Amino acid sequence: MMIVMRHDATPDEVQRVLQRVQALGFTPHLSHGEERVVIGVIGEARRADPGAFVHLPGVARVVPISRPYKLSSREFHPDDSVVEVGGVRFGGGEDIVIIAGPCSVESRSQMLEIAHAVKEAGAHMLRGGAFKPRTSPYSFQGLGEEGLRYLAEAREATGLPVVTEVMAVDQLDLVAEYADMFQIGARNMQNFALLKAVGKRRKPVLLKRGMSATLSEFLLAAEYILAGGNQQVVLCERGIRTFEPSTRNTTDINAIPVLKASTHLPVLIDPSHSTGHWAYVTPIARAGIAAGADGVIVEVHPRPEEALSDGAQSLKPERFAQLVREIKAIAAVVRQAAVSAMPGGNHGSAPGV
Amino acid sequence: MMIVMRHDATPDEVQRVLQRVQALGFTPHLSHGEERVVIGVIGEARRADPGAFVHLPGVARVVPISRPYKLSSREFHPDDSVVEVGGVRFGGGEDIVIIAGPCSVESRSQMLEIAHAVKEAGAHMLRGGAFKPRTSPYSFQGLGEEGLRYLAEAREATGLPVVTEVMAVDQLDLVAEYADMFQIGARNMQNFALLKAVGKRRKPVLLKRGMSATLSEFLLAAEYILAGGNQQVVLCERGIRTFEPSTRNTTDINAIPVLKASTHLPVLIDPSHSTGHWAYVTPIARAGIAAGADGVIVEVHPRPEEALSDGAQSLKPERFAQLVREIKAIAAVVRQAAVSAMPGGNHGSAPGV
Amino acid sequence: MMIVMRHDATPDEVQRVLQRVQALGFTPHLSHGEERVVIGVIGEARRADPGAFVHLPGVARVVPISRPYKLSSREFHPDDSVVEVGGVRFGGGEDIVIIAGPCSVESRSQMLEIAHAVKEAGAHMLRGGAFKPRTSPYSFQGLGEEGLRYLAEAREATGLPVVTEVMAVDQLDLVAEYADMFQIGARNMQNFALLKAVGKRRKPVLLKRGMSATLSEFLLAAEYILAGGNQQVVLCERGIRTFEPSTRNTTDINAIPVLKASTHLPVLIDPSHSTGHWAYVTPIARAGIAAGADGVIVEVHPRPEEALSDGAQSLKPERFAQLVREIKAIAAVVRQAAVSAMPGGNHGSAPGV
Amino acid sequence: MMIVMRHDATPDEVQRVLQRVQALGFTPHLSHGEERVVIGVIGEARRADPGAFVHLPGVARVVPISRPYKLSSREFHPDDSVVEVGGVRFGGGEDIVIIAGPCSVESRSQMLEIAHAVKEAGAHMLRGGAFKPRTSPYSFQGLGEEGLRYLAEAREATGLPVVTEVMAVDQLDLVAEYADMFQIGARNMQNFALLKAVGKRRKPVLLKRGMSATLSEFLLAAEYILAGGNQQVVLCERGIRTFEPSTRNTTDINAIPVLKASTHLPVLIDPSHSTGHWAYVTPIARAGIAAGADGVIVEVHPRPEEALSDGAQSLKPERFAQLVREIKAIAAVVRQAAVSAMPGGNHGSAPGV
Repeated sequence: MMIVMRHDATPDEVQRVLQRVQALGFTPHLSHGEERVVIGVIGEARRADPGAFVHLPGVARVVPISRPYKLSSREFHPDDSVVEVGGVRFGGGEDIVIIAGPCSVESRSQMLEIAHAVKEAGAHMLRGGAFKPRTSPYSFQGLGEEGLRYLAEAREATGLPVVTEVMAVDQLDLVAEYADMFQIGARNMQNFALLKAVGKRRKPVLLKRGMSATLSEFLLAAEYILAGGNQQVVLCERGIRTFEPSTRNTTDINAIPVLKASTHLPVLIDPSHSTGHWAYVTPIARAGIAAGADGVIVEVHPRPEEALSDGAQSLKPERFAQLVREIKAIAAVVRQAAVSAMPGGNHGSAPGV
Repeated sequence: MMIVMRHDATPDEVQRVLQRVQALGFTPHLSHGEERVVIGVIGEARRADPGAFVHLPGVARVVPISRPYKLSSREFHPDDSVVEVGGVRFGGGEDIVIIAGPCSVESRSQMLEIAHAVKEAGAHMLRGGAFKPRTSPYSFQGLGEEGLRYLAEAREATGLPVVTEVMAVDQLDLVAEYADMFQIGARNMQNFALLKAVGKRRKPVLLKRGMSATLSEFLLAAEYILAGGNQQVVLCERGIRTFEPSTRNTTDINAIPVLKASTHLPVLIDPSHSTGHWAYVTPIARAGIAAGADGVIVEVHPRPEEALSDGAQSLKPERFAQLVREIKAIAAVVRQAAVSAMPGGNHGSAPGV
Repeated sequence: MMIVMRHDATPDEVQRVLQRVQALGFTPHLSHGEERVVIGVIGEARRADPGAFVHLPGVARVVPISRPYKLSSREFHPDDSVVEVGGVRFGGGEDIVIIAGPCSVESRSQMLEIAHAVKEAGAHMLRGGAFKPRTSPYSFQGLGEEGLRYLAEAREATGLPVVTEVMAVDQLDLVAEYADMFQIGARNMQNFALLKAVGKRRKPVLLKRGMSATLSEFLLAAEYILAGGNQQVVLCERGIRTFEPSTRNTTDINAIPVLKASTHLPVLIDPSHSTGHWAYVTPIARAGIAAGADGVIVEVHPRPEEALSDGAQSLKPERFAQLVREIKAIAAVVRQAAVSAMPGGNHGSAPGV
Repeated sequence: MMIVMRHDATPDEVQRVLQRVQALGFTPHLSHGEERVVIGVIGEARRADPGAFVHLPGVARVVPISRPYKLSSREFHPDDSVVEVGGVRFGGGEDIVIIAGPCSVESRSQMLEIAHAVKEAGAHMLRGGAFKPRTSPYSFQGLGEEGLRYLAEAREATGLPVVTEVMAVDQLDLVAEYADMFQIGARNMQNFALLKAVGKRRKPVLLKRGMSATLSEFLLAAEYILAGGNQQVVLCERGIRTFEPSTRNTTDINAIPVLKASTHLPVLIDPSHSTGHWAYVTPIARAGIAAGADGVIVEVHPRPEEALSDGAQSLKPERFAQLVREIKAIAAVVRQAAVSAMPGGNHGSAPGV
């Protein structure tokens, strides 16, 4: 971290900051600029807090230098991590992974019908919510364990592994029994009790970005899981909250290349939640893959107008099958592009998060 | 809700929408406008989903009319609710409530020292975190039960009731034993499992706004608690996330009068988190009270440069005492203003959330 | 527009609103809902202001129904508009258009060098700023007319038409003399004097989205130009301002399909400004084309580290050539997808802006 | 600026950065941290661009240290500037200034009626738009010179100086003839041609913050005017764009103390535009003054339901008179608070922009 002094800071004030840096066990590094003194704090990476210095007279502000995350950082772990879920492999330049299914598990027949349809269309994994986080207490809250059973039955019937959301620590055992991968939803991205709990498990986790989480906070949420010992984390961009009202969220497409530069973990895109309307799902799925995502997670429903949740953003199976064809063709272009890496061009690094 | 048809919708398409409205058990109300047909859906308040209609041919979009919350709504409950915590009364035109204390409980002596200091300065309640939600897994995570014991001891020593954050359902019993009021933090505003759990308790809840929650979502989070049977909810604006980098968050000061117009629940302001720097805490506390807040919650630390969390935004006790004097003077102006209600002037209602 | 009454509005209050609607020359349409009365205002499309009603007692709020733009609307003009600039055609399912060049025109030799390089790499048009909008008064402000001359010379040398920014009404004559297309930059998207002035010209306009403009406001800015009689408008998404700090702006990739659904005007993407770093430009250019954009505008500089502006986001020519190959391959996939339109799948319309 | 190297940067890469710093005429200052090398660039304040370094191999990112503005900076000009307009004094601890009037000048009688009413209620200056920036080309665009004449007549009748918006360089002479102070509106905050033009005049300027401008950009816009030689600039917070839909904008109340800490220029608040609804104007005016603003600018209309623009947010004169009484009482509290400066408490500085 760098402590930027005011241009009118006195020598005594500078001295006092140097002493405080040393008192905390770090090494100060003084730099006399044109307008002001800047004091580097050596040895503090991820250990000191700006609050330790901003109260001292003469200090203008404190600028962080180190990134706060490490286990999830590509700078410290250059090679792609590959996460495997029931034979499906995420990341590492493997084929893109396509996850599909209903927003909510609504019934046994609905789940089986969709599972067969998405498998036939080319999906590799099934999604479906049994515990549903709903903005209103008056909305459908999910079937709970009954829904988990239908998911498991759909897996038996199709061979597709299953991912489903877990909303609380006390649901972990139950969900672990039925699902192949935990999903932590956007609203729980900073539910630290839950992150710590899945960090102690050995089941893969699909971690969705919070709707106003910076990418740095997103990686720190992953860091909670990694620090617990669970290395099988897949990240998912699902749209952020902005001023634009014409879509449910704003897909942060920049997040795809920024995350790929910043972390070794696989990165998916969720075009259903990030747009909120079926008519935009296919173009945004294509965009996500074109930007370098390792896969997609898409909501599919045979009769979206009857869905108990997220009907507006659900694709019918025929349209989903078309989406699959299109993103596979895009993925082939991106893969080819990666192979023909350029000899000249810009050097340097992506700045990342 | 209103279903807005495309201007080129055919009579058949309109017919099909009317039938669907009826099939769902609602009454359609047709309105032929200059450019297009609009179909009102009568009887659906908080029960129908736009997804039921947006897939139908000829539909341009669906516009909600009813507010999704009801128990927390002032329109349906015009009188102020008063929430009482250990003799301290929030809302209803009572004196403003001042809550103060450290971000984290760090030690017995720290907690006792601060408790005495803030009481002397005029605080009515104590705050202090024992379970801490921290963005990084490498940051101080709180003392847990030990911290709760120090909080309870500080209450015994000063007579000030205690509010402290609860982060997970399985902490509720423990926290209930020591604290007078649960705090649900911003990151857990949509932790629905937790909201449902405190809804079943009979202890007051201080609910903080999520950092990108709309005010409508904030009231729906309160609605989860109210719907569970717990009517003792106090809301707290603590800053939202915007593009402006010079402060930690952007205090949504508009939220104070908007919430007061929309709900009967008491509303506080947290100038510490909403600014992130001690130098801005006092002016923003004044602003919050001037805008009509029922109280403040402020972080105070005798030696902020040694605080284990949020040192940058903590006030020293002397400065806090000054803040108390200032906001009490402001509160007197606001109260006087309310009394001399104007005879003429604008009519109509505040639109609320 | 719909006037939503409070649930406790009296018959007299309703009556007064009906009278006011009629007094303004519109027709009221009363709808008795479950909880409240809603009054439709027939005949007011784009003519009445909510302010006319919100002051009346008993009114809860006013909800707009009509879209405020019309000339730019696809609903009223279903067929794609094609804009032609010196033989280059934007929109209408034509091949994607690639515009490239330096942020600022810096010298004759720089401009000629880049023009030849981007032409060879496959660009169809040249960009380059002679008048530069710079956040700081201390930054390079552009070469002015000298820059325009170099642009024109580069056009002569390569045959590529030229687009350049115009920042003020009194620059229009000068710029018109040298350039084939006016650019209105993001900071001037609501410079209405400038919009009106280019509306009276018969030269094509590249209109960039303001950095916090909603898509509705973007279309209204285009509407100013169209209403003036100039139909040759091309829109460009260039990133919006959000809380995420890791990129200069957040590319609103959703804007591409939303705009394509809402308007008949061609839509480009600017991956340079929307990311701010060269390492992200290529993936975001791919994403934009995958989402359905009609073309890209990209900053290219042979020695970005010496650029007088926007060096960080400029591509070297070799890397740009690679970008061109990749987006052409993506465009072929998107075109193929459009041809194999699906027979089944979802119906209904995209809601648009 | 600080150049942060990758942790795996080679000595050769570091060497190359050092050479580049020197080649640009600056002095590098090397600092070996725990994880990486950081290179300070001495002598570059406001002169070097990060783009000069981010393309070099081994560079992770570049962190600015100096603030980009100087003439508007309080750090370099500690004393408050006072701006005088026709005998009314802004800033410097003088009494708060109250500006009021209609959104648009609509007629001679309307303007005179309002002018007398706001004078009687306690306003010190008149506002009123003759040239109106309107989002839609179909909205009322202002009376132009006719409106300016009515403003001048209202000044003669009441003695109140007049501020009115200027939207384009070619309106400056005309507006200068009639008005005492130019207003630059939010949409033109980065209309650099206009900023430069008013910088050459010797008439005071009321500069409104752009709706997504950072405070740093706001001060740089002021810097354009100051750098032109015009020192009479008053800043105005008027709300920023966020995700919250219940108000027209979000009042950035934090901006008041942040600007007061960052600049010596006077700072106003505009509670009308920052809320968009009359019912919130008074509490937010109080909040602005409580936060330390030097004054307010408020929209007043005798019959808001008939206003040609911004009727929803206009106060009737009776309510405005009440607002004046309340903010004067708040101002007295703030002034008293400033006098009783605290002896103990926090030290250090506000970080500012």
